[in-house]
Amino acid sequence: MKRLSEYAMEVEEALRDLNIGDMQPATLYAPVAYAMEAGGKRIRPTLLLMAAEAFGLAAAKAMPAALAIELFHNFTLLHDDVMDKSEMRRNRETVVKRFGADAAILSGDAMLGLAEEQIFGVEDGKYRRVMEIFNRMSKDVYAGQALDMEFEGRDNVTVEEYVEMIRLKTGALLGAAAEIGGVLAGVNDKVAGKLREYGENLGLAFQIEDDWLDTFGDAATFGKQIGGDINNKKKTYLLISGLNAGNEEAKALKVAVNELPAGDMKVKTVKRIYEKMHLDEIGRKDALKYSAKAMKAAKATGLDESQLDSFKYLVDRLSGRKK
Amino acid sequence: MKRLSEYAMEVEEALRDLNIGDMQPATLYAPVAYAMEAGGKRIRPTLLLMAAEAFGLAAAKAMPAALAIELFHNFTLLHDDVMDKSEMRRNRETVVKRFGADAAILSGDAMLGLAEEQIFGVEDGKYRRVMEIFNRMSKDVYAGQALDMEFEGRDNVTVEEYVEMIRLKTGALLGAAAEIGGVLAGVNDKVAGKLREYGENLGLAFQIEDDWLDTFGDAATFGKQIGGDINNKKKTYLLISGLNAGNEEAKALKVAVNELPAGDMKVKTVKRIYEKMHLDEIGRKDALKYSAKAMKAAKATGLDESQLDSFKYLVDRLSGRKK
Repeated sequence: MKRLSEYAMEVEEALRDLNIGDMQPATLYAPVAYAMEAGGKRIRPTLLLMAAEAFGLAAAKAMPAALAIELFHNFTLLHDDVMDKSEMRRNRETVVKRFGADAAILSGDAMLGLAEEQIFGVEDGKYRRVMEIFNRMSKDVYAGQALDMEFEGRDNVTVEEYVEMIRLKTGALLGAAAEIGGVLAGVNDKVAGKLREYGENLGLAFQIEDDWLDTFGDAATFGKQIGGDINNKKKTYLLISGLNAGNEEAKALKVAVNELPAGDMKVKTVKRIYEKMHLDEIGRKDALKYSAKAMKAAKATGLDESQLDSFKYLVDRLSGRKK
Repeated sequence: MKRLSEYAMEVEEALRDLNIGDMQPATLYAPVAYAMEAGGKRIRPTLLLMAAEAFGLAAAKAMPAALAIELFHNFTLLHDDVMDKSEMRRNRETVVKRFGADAAILSGDAMLGLAEEQIFGVEDGKYRRVMEIFNRMSKDVYAGQALDMEFEGRDNVTVEEYVEMIRLKTGALLGAAAEIGGVLAGVNDKVAGKLREYGENLGLAFQIEDDWLDTFGDAATFGKQIGGDINNKKKTYLLISGLNAGNEEAKALKVAVNELPAGDMKVKTVKRIYEKMHLDEIGRKDALKYSAKAMKAAKATGLDESQLDSFKYLVDRLSGRKK
């Protein structure tokens, strides 16, 4: 089994070979180069390459599509950071903070153009099919972001609605990465569908785990300050599950989140209510449920145990049990 | 010869048939529907359909690509209006003014996704070629917008640089529209190149004429207030030509544009300097130069005189001699 970090290194090298920093006009591409240099775990292209190799296609042949997926992901971060007015990402200033909103918008657009340009590098006979997956995925991601923004202003979001939102916003891209990897390797429609299912559920497990870590994680390994979601009144899996419980704790939770001023006391209070509602355990368990769904889909692709190892490893890593 | 307004009506109908207003989530697509309802002259899809029919392909077969071009154009307006903080367009509030910047950014992204989705409607064997033209065009348009923004902060922009900027920002899209129309109808690479050349030069003539009209036009027929560019210190063909003249008037122009407070007196003063420099005539003549280049390219496609009529009509209309 090839280690996931090897794929990530190959992606890093292929990204460097694009020489984005030399593209003209510099005012358009310098923010793109800056964003791509920030690194990150390169999970999505890794998944694409891993799926391609599992079905017999050398990673190098799948690399153009992997780069497209990673560029697309970073394009969405650029635009999301403008909308969220985020100032920091991966321990550096965001593009919007450093270059301004106009550059973040326009360079984001250019990044999407660059992403799609990479897809011309896939085999001719596969180009249209890959674009179909890519196009549907992009529309899903925008829909997910729209719902996420809509939910912030609504008080009655159900757990089902929240799960559908993260399926679109986070799951669709991982699903498309796995599916494209398979399609490039020539799998049939059924297997392609199972690969997508694997990626989507991996995304759900990852997002629910991420929500959990923001409240119950360890600041040192999580890499962000604990309690940020609580202080920002962010609609997370924990908060929505809690608010929908329909009991006394749900009422107390609503008051605590909406009325307490941001700060350590608020984080502590909300955390205590979550624990009283057993959401610390439930949140974790639900993440595991989606991890299990992901692995069930992976097994249904017909890969043998040894090939499934990397699919399992990725699930474990993203759902927080391996770092 | 089919009238250009007939193409525009067919485009309008096909846009209505997309039922964008019914697309979900509504928060994502309502701004898209609003933007597309605003109308406009539908020049770009008209050009695409016209080029397709001139080379023997029925407009209906080229409609998916025509819709893609029109959606793309409107997507760029959404993002441009955020960057320019524009409040009005086509006598209505802009999307950014009505729905806010976040919606304008995200719905713009969705609009681009919708544009590219239309291209799946073209004949299978042409899909990749159309996407290649579309992708290159999109990167040119972003580069043009980046240069436009860059020029606002620079004092030494040359006429050549300005022309290259509008070639990218305005010419590339019209060039791609004409080229795609031809490609769908099966023209060879040489003819496709000439069609692109026609569209690009049409765009240059149009933009230079538009710059001229903003200063020397008639408010009633121009549809915008005269002198807006002068009051906004906008780098236009007239201003850049004037500043680069290297004489006493150029110095006076620089002072007038930079030092005078916005208002009628400023517009009058700058206009008088332009007239002294004969830029009222030169601007017009240069627009005509690009119109002539456009028609030369159109003729080089090998179309006969009667077929060239609509290409001529479009040039005359966009360069302001027919409305």
